[in-house]
Amino acid sequence: MTFVQRLGAAAGSIEGRLAELLAECGPDKGSRLAAAMRHALLGGGKRFRPFLVIESAALFGVEASAARDAAAAFECVHCYSLAHDDLPCMDNDDVRRGLPTVHKAFDEWTAILAGDALLTLAFEIVARPETHADPDVRATLAQVLAHAAGARGMVLGQMLDLEAEKRGEPQQWTVAHVRRLQALKTGALIAASCEAGAVLAKATADERAALRCYGDLLGLAFQIADDLLDAEGDPAAMGKAAGKDSAAGKATLVSLIGVAEARAQLAETVRRAEGELQRFGDKARTLVEAAAFAASRAH
Amino acid sequence: MTFVQRLGAAAGSIEGRLAELLAECGPDKGSRLAAAMRHALLGGGKRFRPFLVIESAALFGVEASAARDAAAAFECVHCYSLAHDDLPCMDNDDVRRGLPTVHKAFDEWTAILAGDALLTLAFEIVARPETHADPDVRATLAQVLAHAAGARGMVLGQMLDLEAEKRGEPQQWTVAHVRRLQALKTGALIAASCEAGAVLAKATADERAALRCYGDLLGLAFQIADDLLDAEGDPAAMGKAAGKDSAAGKATLVSLIGVAEARAQLAETVRRAEGELQRFGDKARTLVEAAAFAASRAH
Repeated sequence: MTFVQRLGAAAGSIEGRLAELLAECGPDKGSRLAAAMRHALLGGGKRFRPFLVIESAALFGVEASAARDAAAAFECVHCYSLAHDDLPCMDNDDVRRGLPTVHKAFDEWTAILAGDALLTLAFEIVARPETHADPDVRATLAQVLAHAAGARGMVLGQMLDLEAEKRGEPQQWTVAHVRRLQALKTGALIAASCEAGAVLAKATADERAALRCYGDLLGLAFQIADDLLDAEGDPAAMGKAAGKDSAAGKATLVSLIGVAEARAQLAETVRRAEGELQRFGDKARTLVEAAAFAASRAH
Repeated sequence: MTFVQRLGAAAGSIEGRLAELLAECGPDKGSRLAAAMRHALLGGGKRFRPFLVIESAALFGVEASAARDAAAAFECVHCYSLAHDDLPCMDNDDVRRGLPTVHKAFDEWTAILAGDALLTLAFEIVARPETHADPDVRATLAQVLAHAAGARGMVLGQMLDLEAEKRGEPQQWTVAHVRRLQALKTGALIAASCEAGAVLAKATADERAALRCYGDLLGLAFQIADDLLDAEGDPAAMGKAAGKDSAAGKATLVSLIGVAEARAQLAETVRRAEGELQRFGDKARTLVEAAAFAASRAH
């Protein structure tokens, strides 16, 4: 299997498990809440975060089936954040993955509540005995997930992004500020997904730290590639309007350092991410390819 | 100490611990996100849910200090739900506990993100080793909390409430429908707070079920009292506008069965709640008084 085939197979498997978990732990199937949660959760997407959970766990010999529920929880958090970020009072996006955003397909209060329910569902899944036999693993997963999602992770990143945008300050941003914002908004959950694989496998503290470092670099590569796509890419490849950030006057890494330097930093970041995986040898091939894949979206 | 003194002392202690937890696990103190979270979380209030966690745990000999963090997590969930429910696209409330609601004091996107961060913080607190030495207890607490808060609990209750209101259907509601909605919207977290005390104490399944039943009945009493307050009470006692539900054309238990019958059901519910505690004898005095207190607000 090529990397893309492997990613696609994982996405299909995760999509199926998400639908099952929604039926097991979610609201009555016929309800408006269930429909909105399905819309937010099952609209396709690469399922890159759950893929990272599964492949990071696989590095230590954990079967994909034993990592799937934890992986699904990370996707629930990702999809909740998209539903809230798309709201009119935040990024005001009408289209996501080629479909109307949740508040467009339903309405604002439904999008907020469906997001709230997905965030809560993520923790319910992580805490269930079905997700892992060892309660210590489940409690640690909940900690890792909460830390990445909350007021020192994704939520703070979105807050800083909006604060600057609504105040019209982005032009004054520095590279350090853009980096920090991206690390919080996008990097935190990607890094936590990699760390979660090590937690699931009860890896050593050293191994867990290496996965975390790899995840941080992967998240950075992912975001530089996103900025390059936004500056040059076509909307079809992004699944959303290209040039949106630059049109909004948002400082991005590309607007601050230019395309050539961004490309150089992207290549260097991928190289460093691969470096973190060296200790795992050939077993880490898929994760090495994942870093290259995250970067390749910009080509 | 009288019951009200005991409740007040617990509220003070919880308020202090919430501020500490916000500093330990929350965003930088000077940030807008931190200010909004503090506004949502530290605006006073009875702290009835954390009180129930602490007193339910005390029933089994657990010290208040050993139950405080779990108790604080339940209050985080309660306060997040208020911040989101108050939003213009939901209940559209400007005042809460005599202060401007979060979106009035800040803005809508800040209120949504502060709520998201508080919900996430609740699970981070519950999952921390500081909250309980036994990871099985922490994972079970996360499950109990997620179940009460999510798509089969509070979020569903708010969804059903808004759905009927926005469609102008409340007049067609039956007593069974109002009961279900209230059980989800208010009862679920109150019942889970009582159950959490038993979980913290590693009580037997039987004891945990009794606490859960007591909590269900307590939640019901709480809500009937709220309906009576809304129909007859003064705004000062409620901390919000009286008559709001009836003015909105919302069917309440009182509008469906009348004041006299609601009072009779309230007394019967309190009696049954006390019955669930009989097995615990005199140790349960405070929880018996809590049921009477929940009801007494309507007098």
